[in-house]
Amino acid sequence: MVSYDRMTKEELLKEDESLREAYKDYQKRDLSLNMARGKPSPAQLELSNGLLSNLNTDDIIDKESGLDVRNYGCLDGLRGMKRILAKMAGCSEENVIVCGNSSLNIMYDQVARAMASGIMGSTPWAKLDEVKWICPVPGYDRHFSITEHFGIKMINVPMLDDGPDMDMVEELVKDPAVKGIWCVPKYSNPEGKVYSEKVVMRFAGLKPAAADFRIFWDNAYCVHYLYDDIERQAEIPDIISACSMAGNPDMVFEFMSTSKITFPGAGIAGIAASPANIKDILSSMSAQTIGYDKINQLRHIKFFESTGGIREQMKRHAKILRPKFDIVKNTFERELLGRNCGSWTNPMGGYFVTFRTLPGLAKKVVSIAKEAGVTLTGAGAPFPYHLDPDDSVIRIAPSFPSEEELQEAMNIFCLSVRMATVEKILGKD
Amino acid sequence: MVSYDRMTKEELLKEDESLREAYKDYQKRDLSLNMARGKPSPAQLELSNGLLSNLNTDDIIDKESGLDVRNYGCLDGLRGMKRILAKMAGCSEENVIVCGNSSLNIMYDQVARAMASGIMGSTPWAKLDEVKWICPVPGYDRHFSITEHFGIKMINVPMLDDGPDMDMVEELVKDPAVKGIWCVPKYSNPEGKVYSEKVVMRFAGLKPAAADFRIFWDNAYCVHYLYDDIERQAEIPDIISACSMAGNPDMVFEFMSTSKITFPGAGIAGIAASPANIKDILSSMSAQTIGYDKINQLRHIKFFESTGGIREQMKRHAKILRPKFDIVKNTFERELLGRNCGSWTNPMGGYFVTFRTLPGLAKKVVSIAKEAGVTLTGAGAPFPYHLDPDDSVIRIAPSFPSEEELQEAMNIFCLSVRMATVEKILGKD
Repeated sequence: MVSYDRMTKEELLKEDESLREAYKDYQKRDLSLNMARGKPSPAQLELSNGLLSNLNTDDIIDKESGLDVRNYGCLDGLRGMKRILAKMAGCSEENVIVCGNSSLNIMYDQVARAMASGIMGSTPWAKLDEVKWICPVPGYDRHFSITEHFGIKMINVPMLDDGPDMDMVEELVKDPAVKGIWCVPKYSNPEGKVYSEKVVMRFAGLKPAAADFRIFWDNAYCVHYLYDDIERQAEIPDIISACSMAGNPDMVFEFMSTSKITFPGAGIAGIAASPANIKDILSSMSAQTIGYDKINQLRHIKFFESTGGIREQMKRHAKILRPKFDIVKNTFERELLGRNCGSWTNPMGGYFVTFRTLPGLAKKVVSIAKEAGVTLTGAGAPFPYHLDPDDSVIRIAPSFPSEEELQEAMNIFCLSVRMATVEKILGKD
Repeated sequence: MVSYDRMTKEELLKEDESLREAYKDYQKRDLSLNMARGKPSPAQLELSNGLLSNLNTDDIIDKESGLDVRNYGCLDGLRGMKRILAKMAGCSEENVIVCGNSSLNIMYDQVARAMASGIMGSTPWAKLDEVKWICPVPGYDRHFSITEHFGIKMINVPMLDDGPDMDMVEELVKDPAVKGIWCVPKYSNPEGKVYSEKVVMRFAGLKPAAADFRIFWDNAYCVHYLYDDIERQAEIPDIISACSMAGNPDMVFEFMSTSKITFPGAGIAGIAASPANIKDILSSMSAQTIGYDKINQLRHIKFFESTGGIREQMKRHAKILRPKFDIVKNTFERELLGRNCGSWTNPMGGYFVTFRTLPGLAKKVVSIAKEAGVTLTGAGAPFPYHLDPDDSVIRIAPSFPSEEELQEAMNIFCLSVRMATVEKILGKD
């Protein structure tokens, strides 16, 4: 395939025309395809339908605690659910608090608490002149929305192949106004990168100036493997133990959730941290609620018992997701390889593929695709304040559409990339 | 019956001795009875067991919205659930946001949001030198825990027979540091009092100095009648309409919950407010979560459809609760009437009875009862900072124990009241 940057102007004009023809054909079809959000597909949701009605009146007393799960109480969650989340994330069950259906909500609450009351006795962040936050980029847009919402100043740090640029992170935490960092350590959103053991250890060994600096370790994709063979499944060290061994036991909050394991709207989320943090969180949480939904926790405990546990469930998800990631990869290779019009990631897990256009073209590509009926995550979304300095990163979320829809959406996406690139080289934009 | 304050010293000493004998007998029995919390009893929980397994795979698409309730989305909740909460509280469904399992959590979140971000553009409360809050007393301990948690200065206002002392409330809101007031307008916790229409209208017409002053209207017991005959069922005006008509549309947040209608640990809670407030709340909530548990909302919609709605469900609760309130009332009348050793409320709804000892005896009574195996809500709990200025209010929560246990607990309670009173008059304490 001839790379666009080596084509003659004549060749480019011809290519431009032919791409426009193909594009017009798509536009005529009035399509409505969506690759914007990391939503599981209906077929994936079916995998958890057992949860809908797996409890009956014989189940309502939790065996371990003797608690009636229908009634008030049990602020930190059922032991059985703690065990499931701990095993999943690779931490100790003593470190876990089980909450409601949303790990995002827990992260928000942790920042809100720190704003209003500080952490473990520190000055409430809302009383400080400035609070800063490290944001590895590209990252998860909803993380950045939380810190933006609270008026926290976000500082970009680039993601390298094995995690955030730790030289920069180590330097930045010397500033006492820097209070936190967003991390998705395994199959990161949106690049699908995995932090190396070395990076995890550098995190554990950080020497932040602020005693209330916290690593927000969103282990959202800890078991979200696309491949069943163990050699292709990444493992990372338990950050809580690692921090503890490095003499920083209280420096991390870890978040986990079954949203992309059972039901996105009705899963179980949790937070894990050191005993001192857990105590601090519970003291605040006891003013916030009498307890989270224990019936749903019990549903999950029973569901995983009867279906082989989380790993087996994830194999079933992978079976549905893998062909979709293959479609993305194969379409990129077929349509774009050798044309020098962008690059893409090939993740082994998680929910996203990241495409990088030539500089300055992400917004344009998203807009071209939109006009042909394909909705993508907004360009800029994976960056604080929606500002992609290179305007080049586009997050692809292949999970929700059917394989047929996805193939069509990817065809249109690649077409949009080619159009934008050719136009740029021709100086048309 | 001879009133204690008219007995001779000799009579009192004899009474004291005889009470002590009875008390010793109870102590020997090593009882463990609990009237501390407003927890529904197992028999009440049974009424909602239909919720455990009433959904199947045919139900997962919400008919009104076409949404798959298993997946992400729908921040403000299902329409059908809004309608149920609105009808219950007597407000308009457009004013409702449906949240998770805990109205307390929503109240906490509303205060937390105001602390961190202000309300509708106001200065974040955390940045102010002082935030004050009006607390009708006695009131709900968990309300006071929220405001105490955020370091808000609480000001007591006495509850009169038809609601808080509105002369005081009207005066206090002239202070711009006063940002809110806790209200349980119907069958108040713990006295079971109902705000009169006049009081509701005076609330709606308040002229607070602070534009971000909000009435926190916790309509927790809006349908929690103990008697089925309509003459004995209180109705109060819709505070949201009332505020709107009085030219204060944004002055109130109303909270409601099915915690004491279906399952305390897994019900559905909501907040109602003006359109401008709803917009403000959703903008903050969209940073906090992708959405609450819609499956549980759908469970509730289907459950109420198939069981005759909330009013019928409340009749079934009342049938279980009424005999317990009768036990409390009858025991008080049998053991205490005419002795001049305290007074009690006779609520027509809600979850609590309030007993007032002679001044200075509440803690003592709670402690005497405790030593005979009866756990009561701590004396002082219904007051900010746990400080009952008269040390006389004790909250009785009769819902959880069986009728037999409750009768025993009430016998011990009355005995404890008599002992404390006699000792006081004898000058023994």
